[in-house]
Amino acid sequence: MAKMKAAIFVEPGRIVLDEKPIPDVGPLDALIRITTTTICGTDVHILKGEYPVRKGLTVGHEPVGIIEKLGSAVQGYQEGQRVIAGAITPSGHSNASLCGCHSQDGAGTAHGWKPIGGWKFGNTIDGAQAEYVLVPDAMANLAPVPDGLSDEQVLMCPDIMSTGFSGAESGKVRIGDVVAVFAQGPIGLCATAGAKLSGATTIIAVDSIAKRLEIARHMGADHVVNFRETDPVEAIMQITNGRGVDVAIEALGTQATFQACLSVLRPGGTLSSLGVYSSDLTIPLGAFAAGLGDHKIITTLCPGGKERMRRLMEVIKSERLDLKPLVTHRFKLDDIEAAYDLFAHQRDGVLKVAIAP
Amino acid sequence: MAKMKAAIFVEPGRIVLDEKPIPDVGPLDALIRITTTTICGTDVHILKGEYPVRKGLTVGHEPVGIIEKLGSAVQGYQEGQRVIAGAITPSGHSNASLCGCHSQDGAGTAHGWKPIGGWKFGNTIDGAQAEYVLVPDAMANLAPVPDGLSDEQVLMCPDIMSTGFSGAESGKVRIGDVVAVFAQGPIGLCATAGAKLSGATTIIAVDSIAKRLEIARHMGADHVVNFRETDPVEAIMQITNGRGVDVAIEALGTQATFQACLSVLRPGGTLSSLGVYSSDLTIPLGAFAAGLGDHKIITTLCPGGKERMRRLMEVIKSERLDLKPLVTHRFKLDDIEAAYDLFAHQRDGVLKVAIAP
Amino acid sequence: MAKMKAAIFVEPGRIVLDEKPIPDVGPLDALIRITTTTICGTDVHILKGEYPVRKGLTVGHEPVGIIEKLGSAVQGYQEGQRVIAGAITPSGHSNASLCGCHSQDGAGTAHGWKPIGGWKFGNTIDGAQAEYVLVPDAMANLAPVPDGLSDEQVLMCPDIMSTGFSGAESGKVRIGDVVAVFAQGPIGLCATAGAKLSGATTIIAVDSIAKRLEIARHMGADHVVNFRETDPVEAIMQITNGRGVDVAIEALGTQATFQACLSVLRPGGTLSSLGVYSSDLTIPLGAFAAGLGDHKIITTLCPGGKERMRRLMEVIKSERLDLKPLVTHRFKLDDIEAAYDLFAHQRDGVLKVAIAP
Amino acid sequence: MAKMKAAIFVEPGRIVLDEKPIPDVGPLDALIRITTTTICGTDVHILKGEYPVRKGLTVGHEPVGIIEKLGSAVQGYQEGQRVIAGAITPSGHSNASLCGCHSQDGAGTAHGWKPIGGWKFGNTIDGAQAEYVLVPDAMANLAPVPDGLSDEQVLMCPDIMSTGFSGAESGKVRIGDVVAVFAQGPIGLCATAGAKLSGATTIIAVDSIAKRLEIARHMGADHVVNFRETDPVEAIMQITNGRGVDVAIEALGTQATFQACLSVLRPGGTLSSLGVYSSDLTIPLGAFAAGLGDHKIITTLCPGGKERMRRLMEVIKSERLDLKPLVTHRFKLDDIEAAYDLFAHQRDGVLKVAIAP
Repeated sequence: MAKMKAAIFVEPGRIVLDEKPIPDVGPLDALIRITTTTICGTDVHILKGEYPVRKGLTVGHEPVGIIEKLGSAVQGYQEGQRVIAGAITPSGHSNASLCGCHSQDGAGTAHGWKPIGGWKFGNTIDGAQAEYVLVPDAMANLAPVPDGLSDEQVLMCPDIMSTGFSGAESGKVRIGDVVAVFAQGPIGLCATAGAKLSGATTIIAVDSIAKRLEIARHMGADHVVNFRETDPVEAIMQITNGRGVDVAIEALGTQATFQACLSVLRPGGTLSSLGVYSSDLTIPLGAFAAGLGDHKIITTLCPGGKERMRRLMEVIKSERLDLKPLVTHRFKLDDIEAAYDLFAHQRDGVLKVAIAP
Repeated sequence: MAKMKAAIFVEPGRIVLDEKPIPDVGPLDALIRITTTTICGTDVHILKGEYPVRKGLTVGHEPVGIIEKLGSAVQGYQEGQRVIAGAITPSGHSNASLCGCHSQDGAGTAHGWKPIGGWKFGNTIDGAQAEYVLVPDAMANLAPVPDGLSDEQVLMCPDIMSTGFSGAESGKVRIGDVVAVFAQGPIGLCATAGAKLSGATTIIAVDSIAKRLEIARHMGADHVVNFRETDPVEAIMQITNGRGVDVAIEALGTQATFQACLSVLRPGGTLSSLGVYSSDLTIPLGAFAAGLGDHKIITTLCPGGKERMRRLMEVIKSERLDLKPLVTHRFKLDDIEAAYDLFAHQRDGVLKVAIAP
Repeated sequence: MAKMKAAIFVEPGRIVLDEKPIPDVGPLDALIRITTTTICGTDVHILKGEYPVRKGLTVGHEPVGIIEKLGSAVQGYQEGQRVIAGAITPSGHSNASLCGCHSQDGAGTAHGWKPIGGWKFGNTIDGAQAEYVLVPDAMANLAPVPDGLSDEQVLMCPDIMSTGFSGAESGKVRIGDVVAVFAQGPIGLCATAGAKLSGATTIIAVDSIAKRLEIARHMGADHVVNFRETDPVEAIMQITNGRGVDVAIEALGTQATFQACLSVLRPGGTLSSLGVYSSDLTIPLGAFAAGLGDHKIITTLCPGGKERMRRLMEVIKSERLDLKPLVTHRFKLDDIEAAYDLFAHQRDGVLKVAIAP
Repeated sequence: MAKMKAAIFVEPGRIVLDEKPIPDVGPLDALIRITTTTICGTDVHILKGEYPVRKGLTVGHEPVGIIEKLGSAVQGYQEGQRVIAGAITPSGHSNASLCGCHSQDGAGTAHGWKPIGGWKFGNTIDGAQAEYVLVPDAMANLAPVPDGLSDEQVLMCPDIMSTGFSGAESGKVRIGDVVAVFAQGPIGLCATAGAKLSGATTIIAVDSIAKRLEIARHMGADHVVNFRETDPVEAIMQITNGRGVDVAIEALGTQATFQACLSVLRPGGTLSSLGVYSSDLTIPLGAFAAGLGDHKIITTLCPGGKERMRRLMEVIKSERLDLKPLVTHRFKLDDIEAAYDLFAHQRDGVLKVAIAP
């Protein structure tokens, strides 16, 4: 049985590069030879043992690669095509998929609806930080990469661009809206870009790292607030002349930023929550009390599916947006442990790393 | 090779019962043994040669039956289960399916989007007026029938209930709305029922057949207008005190009813068009001229997919709605030519026929 | 200056009937002679001092009455007409009103948007528990009562019917949906009715009082759960075969019910929150963690405006719904202190009281 | 009685500058001293007698000016403020206004809903091509001009920017969409800009005038098609690799462009119609026939209201868009007849004229 290299979760604190068999290809699957992948903040939660996965699992959920082998029932693709797949892999045949809720895909059982979570790669099945990854339900998930786009140009599509954009989309940002984006890590930067593309005309980006705020300006921020220097709620209320924002996007996952989002919302505004929280959230009384407000709080998990991937790559191809500045470091797959070390400790101004064979 | 009986299009004017091989089951398919099916107005268009299909095609798109055999890649079902499938059969893996637009399913090619129309049964592939039907993309399409529901209770789900309800759903009927439904054939009656379930509190049903208007009242109509006796536009404007209706549903497919719908819409109202038109439509100037209005005109083809079927059967199971009165006549499959004769000539007050082996 | 009787907030624990001048009528106002009004749970919060209002304020926000006098700039009404006005009184000319967000009406200043909260009656201006009430922005707020409807039939429209229905409407309940409604007080009962009218086909009502659960069945509940006898989360998951509900409506305002709502939501489901919370809310981690879900949390304050009132009265007039069973006790205005005593202590199975001169 | 100059409709073919009394100010009105206005295509229809108005009416519906005098009941503004008002002037208190449907404002009668059309200026009441204009329902309509914006910068907000943007908004353009805009007159150019701001990444602009197509590129078009040189349907299907467009915006008002829009729509796409048609429209059979599609056809009249105006001016202020290139010629009010002559004959590459005292 042929072997391949893969980044494997061993125990909390240890993800190591090891050998594994190249997986067999079922009738609905496609085997993809990975040409570029990356590490996500969630992978660091896995590394630290904060998000539990089974030992021996291959980590990673952001695949860019080439079709090596197609399942016997897969139609409409050719081996050798360049493709990506989303971090979330809808089956295409569960009830949730057929509703357009791809991140909430279920097991597709005949009797009713048994949710298993739409996120499979590097969570419930082997992931993309490897030489090969097996994509389930290939016909619903493989999106061909348009000619002329490099691996690094589309590397953000499978997860953070999709997630970040969904912050603006789920929040229903409209032309002329005021939007605040709390935290300008990779997802927050994509949320800033998504708000710009959705027509927001006043975008306020909040973070504590000057370099990230500088990139935020390139992504479309009109105002940047360094929360180490200025109280962000006060700053935002001042920028908006006391009106507040139409949409606040939470892209960090802490009580403080969640509460700040609520504080800057105009009455009737929407809090679009993208962060993954690692402790309970408290909603202060005022937010719900009569006389204060109709707020919407919307949480979104990264949407997937090949149509979503197609649209995101269209954005890149149109040159409306360039996400290459997010790739700050490059590693060989052989050096992925060093990449984890850098990324987990957020050294050297790292935003995203590109991992290639 | 085993044979089965099937209603086959031979030439304009002739649909005959003949023998055909029982189809082979591909990896994604399911073979269903039909226990009940029916004839649709569109089948009559096919019979008359008004809607072209290839010679030798098995007609019919409303299957109720039992899983006889599952494709090798199909998971989550068992042979012997009672199921239905929608008239429209989304693949589950094309870009359109992944957007929730099931009636607009495409070919699922890797390069872009090639529409082939979502309606396949009895249109581009063999249909359900037979002993067996092969359901493509079975995992996206087979919906198990809840225990306790008879074949005739769910017989309208695959097409006319889904289409009729979509008239109210696409028209975004709200609680307290005024809705007019033009024509009370099977689809119009379902549209009337759908408007009722959506919260419309004044529903005006228009037709020329007293018996249909009587059933319309059972489906939820508050007012009925016989257009042979009364001008329906005048009657509706009088019932609404000159305000007009929030949503007008066109369920016939003629210039006269389309224009009547436009005439009774309040400014800002929605025309939801379900009818299949057999000649060009003209929109009178007034409808678009400045000062008259923001109208929405929405056309909907019957939505499909197993989640849709599940929801429709939930409605039946809840006893909020009883569609059995729509089944006015019953035939053996062996007598399907007589059924076509009755249905095509609209004799004996026929609404829908049930065809069983 | 002519005097009238009014229920006045004196200090925490004391709302008393006293005399006040009949108010002057400004150019945009209308003076309404109250023929019937009622007491709301929020009024009890005011009585207890939990919700602060200024001393001397007339309480109450649910007016049914007759136009006594119109402001000089008011057009389109006649003195002597029977009308209602919503608890929330949009100005009709603020930016929020012009967006259709009536409960979030602002001050309508020329420079930007200064929210003052849409709820004015018995909160920031004198309310309806009096012989007369002054309605601001009369042209945006007065809705004529259709002939044939009694005061008690429309008494719930200004607040609890509007609020309860908005639970279903904001939650975007669809035909065939499964909906759970936590708490079957007056608002919860209206939410149950709103879910039924929106097409939900499995409605699960939760409360601890048998009489309320019995009324819930009349309002449309298919299943009732007495949480003193059964764990409601377990019961709901069992009723739904482990799938969970599409929409959970919170109509009480406690941590326990909020959390129960989150626990019974299917992935992708919506929590529609109507309750007024009197302490901070905590969202348990699981609700947001990756892999669990896209939930929407929507909070709605009672929508107002004359068009909303018109639609609600259309529902009553259509006889799709009868809210008279909610009126369990009747008092003279002179006896309003006794009415508060009964209502605040929730004695004798009280749901709503009708107060008439 | 003080007099002012005004452009008055005399008879078909004749709009002349004449003297009129400066209007009296009712309690809800504001008198605006016009500092800049413009001529619209609809005004030319009036000039030609194609759109009937009463003799003696002052024409024009695009006011930029200064508050000269406020009605006695108007609050929140000061005399001397710079303001604009939309071409459509919602009352703020009719049922339609309270639904957010500003262009469909009704008469606000107490008994139901009597539509009179939301467009009043230069249609049913005296308009803006004058020294002064009386704005009805001032509190719902006056939008203060942000500091630093010139008259010409905001001159398109009252009508064509609002109309053009609504083409993209009503069509629900999403990030990554393909949009075609038929005709690049002032409204079409604004529709192109609106599509860009809404996130469309492939925008195809169609016209026959090279200069307009050049400006279309500045507004955001990625491809331009000169229909005198190339068949636009073929060109669009080629650009989209046979897929068709997500949204087609019709900004001319002819059968040919309407039909071309239908021809280039992908299945499930939306036709957003902005043009004012001067003859009946025919929808070819194919568009509705089963198997072809779910199309939405949406017609929009210019939305108004001060909140809309505020948002549009925010776009200008943000410098996301510069509409000054649309002002190709400038005239004194005294010379407005010459301006009409130029504009009606579309000489000298005129797009929009600015008229100042």
